Order: sequence, then C-alpha cells, then structure tokens
Amino acid sequence: MHSLQFTAESSSNGMVERDFTVGGIPGVLWSPASGADRAPLVLMGHGGGAHKKHRAMAGRARLLVTGCGFHAAVIDAPGHGDRPRTAHDEQEIAELRKAQAAGEPEGPIVVRYNARLAELAVPEWQATLDALQELPEIGADGPVGYVGIGLGMAIGVPLVAAEPRITAAVFGMMWPDALVEAARQITVPIEFDLQWDNERIPREGSLALFDAFASKEKSLHANAGKHMEMPRFEADSATRFFARHLGRAATSPA
Amino acid sequence: MHSLQFTAESSSNGMVERDFTVGGIPGVLWSPASGADRAPLVLMGHGGGAHKKHRAMAGRARLLVTGCGFHAAVIDAPGHGDRPRTAHDEQEIAELRKAQAAGEPEGPIVVRYNARLAELAVPEWQATLDALQELPEIGADGPVGYVGIGLGMAIGVPLVAAEPRITAAVFGMMWPDALVEAARQITVPIEFDLQWDNERIPREGSLALFDAFASKEKSLHANAGKHMEMPRFEADSATRFFARHLGRAATSPA
Repeated sequence: MHSLQFTAESSSNGMVERDFTVGGIPGVLWSPASGADRAPLVLMGHGGGAHKKHRAMAGRARLLVTGCGFHAAVIDAPGHGDRPRTAHDEQEIAELRKAQAAGEPEGPIVVRYNARLAELAVPEWQATLDALQELPEIGADGPVGYVGIGLGMAIGVPLVAAEPRITAAVFGMMWPDALVEAARQITVPIEFDLQWDNERIPREGSLALFDAFASKEKSLHANAGKHMEMPRFEADSATRFFARHLGRAATSPA
Repeated sequence: MHSLQFTAESSSNGMVERDFTVGGIPGVLWSPASGADRAPLVLMGHGGGAHKKHRAMAGRARLLVTGCGFHAAVIDAPGHGDRPRTAHDEQEIAELRKAQAAGEPEGPIVVRYNARLAELAVPEWQATLDALQELPEIGADGPVGYVGIGLGMAIGVPLVAAEPRITAAVFGMMWPDALVEAARQITVPIEFDLQWDNERIPREGSLALFDAFASKEKSLHANAGKHMEMPRFEADSATRFFARHLGRAATSPA
C-alpha cells in the first residue's frame, strides 16, 4: 500500500490546502483550518481537460470545507494536470479536436477515451482513499462521498459501483453509453445533474441512465440550458446533498 | 374591488398568522413577527382535498417567513376548507372515490374537476393579490411568487400564465393534460417537482409538460418514489428558489 506524502501546504479563509502524492499520483486535500476532529470526506473528480485545482474543484471544496466542515480531495486523472500524456492520450485528444473542428459528433470518442481513463483511475482512487483514510483527521470508518461531472462522472460511476466505502454520490453530464451497467450496480443515494437542452449529450439517453441507477434515493436535477450552462446553484445543491447523507448539517447560508 | 378583512390573529416563534377574507373567500397570511418593511410575497396553492392551513402549507410558510423574511398567503380553493361544496363538487368527489375504490384511473376525473376549480380560482387569486398588495407591509410593486403542488399546480399554471405580477413559480405533481397550453405561455423562472416512480401520473407526460414551459430558467427535480413520497427537502429547495428569484437571501441553515 502506498502512503500519502504531503508536498505543499497553504491556507486561506478558514481552509487549508495540501498538495500530496500517493504512489506518484498528484492530488490535493482541502480541509477545515480549525478542528482536529474526524470529518467526512468528499472525493471530487475533475472534468475532461481540467485538473485537480481547476476553479470548479476549488469552488466545490470551499462549499464543502467551510460550509460543512468536510474534507475534499481531488487527484489528477491520467493524462491530466501534472501527469504526463501517453501516446494514446495524444492520439485520442487529436481525434477529439478533429471531430470538434469538423462539427462531427464527439460522443463516440469521449465515451471510449473516458472509459479507458476510468479503467486506470478507479484503482488509483481506491489507493488514494486507502491513504487518505490513514490520516487521523479522516480515519478509516468515516463517511465518504464522491462528486464528478463529465470525465468525473465517467470515472465516478464505475468507482462508486466498485467501492463500498462511498455512500453518496453526485454525477452529471456524461454520455450514458459506457455507464449503464455500472449504474445498475449502484444503490447509494445519488443526485444527477443534466442540462435539458444539451446539444452534445442526447436527453433521452441521460434520462435512461438516471433510470438505471438502482438507488432507492435518487434525485434528477435537469436545468434548462446547453452543455456548458449548468447553473452554479447546483454546486450548492450538491453540498446540501452531502450534508444530508454524510451526516453533518451545512452551516453556510443557502 | 374587494378589500381584505382580517378576522383572527395569532403568533408563534417569530411568525404572525392572520386569517382574512377577500370578497367572502377565506385565506391566511403568514408574516414575519418583526419588521414593518415591505417584503416579497409567496402565494401558495394547497393540494386537492386539503385546505389553507394544511400542515404542508404551514410548513412551507415557516420556511419562507422565518427563513427569508417573506410573506406567505393561502386561500381555500373552491369546495375546500371553510368553503361550501356545490352539487358539482359532491358529484365529482363521488366519481373520484368510486374510481379509486374500483382501482380505475383517477386521472381523467382529477383533470376535468381541477380544470373547473382553476377557472373559478384564478380570478379569486387575482382579487386576493389585489387586496394583499394594498397592505403597506406588502405593497403594489413588490416581488410575488407562487407555489402549488397537485391541485395547487392545476390552479397555478393558468394563474401564472395570466398574471404578470407573479415572477417565479414552483409547481409539481399534476396530470399534464389540461396544462400544456398555459405552460407554453409561462416565461418566468420555474422549479418543477415530479416523482420518478409516480404510479398515478405518467412520467412521459410530466417530462413533456416540463418541456412545454417557455421559461428560459427552469429546473426539473425528479425524485425516486411514488406519488405520495415526495421528499421534504423539496420544500427547502423551493424556499431557496424563491430566495434567489424574489430578491432576498435565505437566512436559514441549509
């Protein structure tokens, strides 16, 4: 088992940010500045082309850490952020850009590339969770959630299906094609975000994917607008979802 | 124009409850106990077979009044609460009970009966809003919202379509049949609740009704569960929706 090594630390406005590595995978852990008590942990999967400290990640971390007193952790996905791209990454990215430039459907390329990234990332996340749970401020038996949009969903659905330590998850905005089978194995509470007028991901497939989750508690949040127009209040909603399911009341104003 | 007459007043835990009548229609207005400032108003339509002080109404009022500093008002729908039933009411209710007892679809009866109640109730709500806006603590130019589930949606959709003073609305849980045309005329922000496993109202029709709203800002909240299992956190979500759109921040914890 790889242990976690912290490589940098800073803090601002009540939140501590610590860069770390686990077995060579770079990540970041955001935590409340005060309090050594054990607190729930939310794993966050970044989007395609983004990285562990993308502002969407830092923004969600702020809500979870200062709003709920939780920890939040992100690792760079394979080929993303501070990790090298392989020849396969370069090839898939080139094909994706070619399709986008030609106005051709990007779905088939994203689906197969992200499915490959998920195969690599699921064991990385499991090793990272092992290491994070060694920290006394997290602990081995505390509640764990997962949130991922786009690539973060492509990785998160198989991760949550495989990982019984994750007991609540927020997903959104990924083609359903490679995810339906894993979704059928998920029984923990989920919140699922989709854009009603998504010009890239067909609505019917997303509704069918929501239907596939075996979770007794699941909520679909569909907002008017295109793929890139997901409203910011869904990050607040996700925070409240984790506050409900991971066991602490959010203290931030609505 | 009918003026509003208060008939009873009580208060508890920071909320004043005043019974009123407008042109013979009985209603209730819940307001913050402190502060004479003008504040936004949310009109609330109760469900079928319920009444103005049903606990679902009092519960939503508590969130809006003590959470946001808003006013909240309900009037009894025709044939409901303190209002007499007509022979037509009795006949439709008898038909509904007969269908329910026989295990036959109640949809067609609810749709036609609630459409008739909406014809009566829309002008009643408009007269009530006229009278409420005469109160100095509400005023003629303040923000107005509407929330209604079930019968409250059957009345609310034509009301919001007809009434430009209402600038944000929350709906849910009504057969779409009589509502699609009015929904197409609505352009204000809406939040729409449906139960994913609703055994009474077909899912496809509800999704088509959500699609019909012309609102640029609209959110569908679909939760796993049957007709009567709508989760309580949707009342919190509706409160935050009104806080966003009627112009004051909610102060209650999430």
